[in-house]
Amino acid sequence: MVVDMVNKAPIGVFDSGVGGLTVVKEIMNQIPGESIIYFGDTARLPYGSKSKKTVIRYTRQIVHFLMQKNVKAIVIACNTASAFALETVKSEIDIPIIGVVKPGAKVAAETTKNGRIGVIGTEGTIQSGIYSQILSKTNPKVEVFGKACPLFVPLVEEGLIDDPVTYEMTRRYISGLVDKDIDTLVLGCTHYPLLRKTIRKVVGNDINLVNPAYETAKSLTQVLSTYGLYNDSIAKTNHKFYVSDGAEKFKSFANTILPCEVVETKDINIEELG
Amino acid sequence: MVVDMVNKAPIGVFDSGVGGLTVVKEIMNQIPGESIIYFGDTARLPYGSKSKKTVIRYTRQIVHFLMQKNVKAIVIACNTASAFALETVKSEIDIPIIGVVKPGAKVAAETTKNGRIGVIGTEGTIQSGIYSQILSKTNPKVEVFGKACPLFVPLVEEGLIDDPVTYEMTRRYISGLVDKDIDTLVLGCTHYPLLRKTIRKVVGNDINLVNPAYETAKSLTQVLSTYGLYNDSIAKTNHKFYVSDGAEKFKSFANTILPCEVVETKDINIEELG
Repeated sequence: MVVDMVNKAPIGVFDSGVGGLTVVKEIMNQIPGESIIYFGDTARLPYGSKSKKTVIRYTRQIVHFLMQKNVKAIVIACNTASAFALETVKSEIDIPIIGVVKPGAKVAAETTKNGRIGVIGTEGTIQSGIYSQILSKTNPKVEVFGKACPLFVPLVEEGLIDDPVTYEMTRRYISGLVDKDIDTLVLGCTHYPLLRKTIRKVVGNDINLVNPAYETAKSLTQVLSTYGLYNDSIAKTNHKFYVSDGAEKFKSFANTILPCEVVETKDINIEELG
Repeated sequence: MVVDMVNKAPIGVFDSGVGGLTVVKEIMNQIPGESIIYFGDTARLPYGSKSKKTVIRYTRQIVHFLMQKNVKAIVIACNTASAFALETVKSEIDIPIIGVVKPGAKVAAETTKNGRIGVIGTEGTIQSGIYSQILSKTNPKVEVFGKACPLFVPLVEEGLIDDPVTYEMTRRYISGLVDKDIDTLVLGCTHYPLLRKTIRKVVGNDINLVNPAYETAKSLTQVLSTYGLYNDSIAKTNHKFYVSDGAEKFKSFANTILPCEVVETKDINIEELG
């Protein structure tokens, strides 16, 4: 394949649903010249409570779908899939693939002052222990405190972003971490940056909130540069959005998050394609 | 097939997850001689926010799986699947199949005194308008008020059965229905009977709560009798439980709900089998 053609190829990004759009938003802001093919597995979400075996099977199907669309690199914009499936899938394909866990964990491990880091995420992400592993590898002195927050995703999807009920659940989930004297809190689920304001109210101003979506877009830029895949043409970008269910609902949510208008979203049957 | 063998065949029951166990419990209580094959589609739950097309596809796969297990009748123990897929699937198979919507709706329409009925359920069930249709067909004079309660399933699965947060969400979801002067409220999702106590606190003592799980078991008894499929042998029952993910987690939840001990739960890949 001609190098120039590879550079113009799109970047594949996927998540179990809409959460990964917070990563897409950061990619669009940081490297606006790149085209994105997004897949949201809305027919099978949420991934957070599913087993490793199942999440690996789903991830393989989606990676296969994105490869058929000739993407030049893939971002797993879902903490659970990054935790469970990244290492397995990485060895099976020949293009760069990154997850959201490592970039966020790396920044947290490098910037903590007292070495006490909190991580919040889905049941799957927290139980996997993936953040502890990567944080400890980057900085062996850190102590990690994890807490699963299973209601955060449904609360965001119900639109209760700034609400007393969300505040109360945030208080219950996070107060214990604040009591552990953490100075850094990793928002280890792509939905959670949308709750940043409520989380800030509970933790106060002295704790550093790490948003893996932002760090992942930075990491992607480095990977594209390393592999000579950066798109430096001035051609118009061509973003495409696919979901496994509810294309219209997805589109309206996407348009509240992204800096550009999502004109069309296609519904596909991932079980048959993947 | 010899009639006697059919009678000893099991009844197939399925749901998107654990909610359908409230129906299994009622079946076990009302017709304890029947064996049950249960399937919980835990890898793809929840169904409540999914489209009709997707829910029909999933239902077909599961019905196919249960037919392979030689069930004599099928109960769709999920309101969303009953609303979206029952009529379609009914015409495709040659054994009796019932859902949870009709039995609950029928009792509500027959017992209301002022003709004002509230229905709570998932987004899919409420938007389908299925309860309104069946209620109006049974009693053309009724007025139906529906309300989707998307956070109830996650709250139950988080174990917040009797909790201030659940009370507050119940108040928000249901107060509007109470203001409409309803005298009957249908718990139109198989998880909701588990919140009966909290719901009762919000609605007071004058509103009749209809539990479709109970009415469905009664309806199943009638169907078995009509088709001569009732098992009147005194042989030991042989219940079997299958899920598409997380067999161990399912088993422990099942053991808190059912009157008999669930010894084994099998994990199967419904996408490949169905």
